[in-house]
Amino acid sequence: MLKHETKIRVRYADTDKMQFVYNGKYLEYFEVGRTELLRGYGLAYSEVEKMGYQLPLIEAGVRYKNPAHYDDLLKVTAIVKDIFSARLRIDYVIEREETNDLIAEGFTEHIFIREESKKPVRPPKFYIETLKPYIKVPK
Amino acid sequence: MLKHETKIRVRYADTDKMQFVYNGKYLEYFEVGRTELLRGYGLAYSEVEKMGYQLPLIEAGVRYKNPAHYDDLLKVTAIVKDIFSARLRIDYVIEREETNDLIAEGFTEHIFIREESKKPVRPPKFYIETLKPYIKVPK
Amino acid sequence: MLKHETKIRVRYADTDKMQFVYNGKYLEYFEVGRTELLRGYGLAYSEVEKMGYQLPLIEAGVRYKNPAHYDDLLKVTAIVKDIFSARLRIDYVIEREETNDLIAEGFTEHIFIREESKKPVRPPKFYIETLKPYIKVPK
Amino acid sequence: MLKHETKIRVRYADTDKMQFVYNGKYLEYFEVGRTELLRGYGLAYSEVEKMGYQLPLIEAGVRYKNPAHYDDLLKVTAIVKDIFSARLRIDYVIEREETNDLIAEGFTEHIFIREESKKPVRPPKFYIETLKPYIKVPK
Repeated sequence: MLKHETKIRVRYADTDKMQFVYNGKYLEYFEVGRTELLRGYGLAYSEVEKMGYQLPLIEAGVRYKNPAHYDDLLKVTAIVKDIFSARLRIDYVIEREETNDLIAEGFTEHIFIREESKKPVRPPKFYIETLKPYIKVPK
Repeated sequence: MLKHETKIRVRYADTDKMQFVYNGKYLEYFEVGRTELLRGYGLAYSEVEKMGYQLPLIEAGVRYKNPAHYDDLLKVTAIVKDIFSARLRIDYVIEREETNDLIAEGFTEHIFIREESKKPVRPPKFYIETLKPYIKVPK
Repeated sequence: MLKHETKIRVRYADTDKMQFVYNGKYLEYFEVGRTELLRGYGLAYSEVEKMGYQLPLIEAGVRYKNPAHYDDLLKVTAIVKDIFSARLRIDYVIEREETNDLIAEGFTEHIFIREESKKPVRPPKFYIETLKPYIKVPK
Repeated sequence: MLKHETKIRVRYADTDKMQFVYNGKYLEYFEVGRTELLRGYGLAYSEVEKMGYQLPLIEAGVRYKNPAHYDDLLKVTAIVKDIFSARLRIDYVIEREETNDLIAEGFTEHIFIREESKKPVRPPKFYIETLKPYIKVPK
């Protein structure tokens, strides 16, 4: 299992007139979570793109548990359980650092596409090879 | 059943370097869809707030079907099937106007809270009364 | 002089916890203003890009006069006085439709670049030819 | 003179189809710069708000010097020269950490308002007292 924690400080721009973080912002926080997870395992997403691949979303879900507020320091935990599937699923947990309140949970599912053709492809070899040592390989 | 269509023009700001609309933007398009649905049925969300209520999200989901691009004119259809539940669920379908391509589907679930206390409450009477004529009342 | 008016409805996503539209959002409203100005004069910006050109900003300014609020209908007026310069300057005035309150004024300055090389170039001929009939040509 | 440096990692969400950071995003980076400047001098902006004050923008300007790209690490320097004026002006310089390229320069001007009344007021005493030790007091 790949697992990584990142901190995000809530910006004024992230809030809305309800005084909470805007609901759509969590998908951006998830993005930061998975970017730093991949970087943490030696596979910066910018490198994935330089190799000619992209990882668009095919599905996303968010469950909003408690509101986050301006200037909160949030802890985003991203988790990957399987790297061999054609679909890459990442799970996320967002907590308020100071209080450990659960703020939101969610997931994103991605497929690999070739940047040029925008066509779906199998997970590229360099991706599998880089992450495999950290995943329990299925027998 | 409440059902309403709105048009949204994709802004440059909505796109990302993948040349597609950024995944988190769809939750903003859903917002426009439900705002215009409520307005279309005589219940502007700004009026809901003036009455002292707010409708935060408790859950959201998006399935990304085809990429939307800069300057695409999108058709957002919002659908409400039930207004009596403590949870308000809204379903969305986003299509490209010109080609009828399905771009994304999704939903949001909301609860009513009092603006002052931020505590959950039952759907307010003015909301039920305004929308009831358009919903088949359960016997 | 080229001049064009567009309407924008303020989204919940555009507001911040101060209850006003977030300061950075006005640059997005300016974008909508100039996109619709160009379209109104027969030169959709998406077509400019299909011809291989882009129009990045080199400078922008905003003066905030009165706050805009959620669900306000804003009138964005975009104005172009000169199309022959290497730099394209566009001025903007944003007003609240209902009250005619002045919300913000500002400008953006752009240069043409080639999409492939990202290098600055002179305003392309098709751009000059399309807009020239609407501009008083300098003698 | 107050001066503070902050690092910001460019998100995918910040980019647009031109492959650059979207022009409006820099005002959000400026926000992060001034938030961390105030925090660095012992005056978290969230505390300013808890005291009943807000600091809306009355003017902003950005000069775009070089494009920033996805995953760039940016260094935002915020500078305050005067805290006694009714208007608070903050200057910003954004550079790419790795290359020291100048990305953007700009400023924001703010006034203090009371949160409740939204009316302009003089800079509050706790603000002056907290920051005065770091500013050369005019004779």
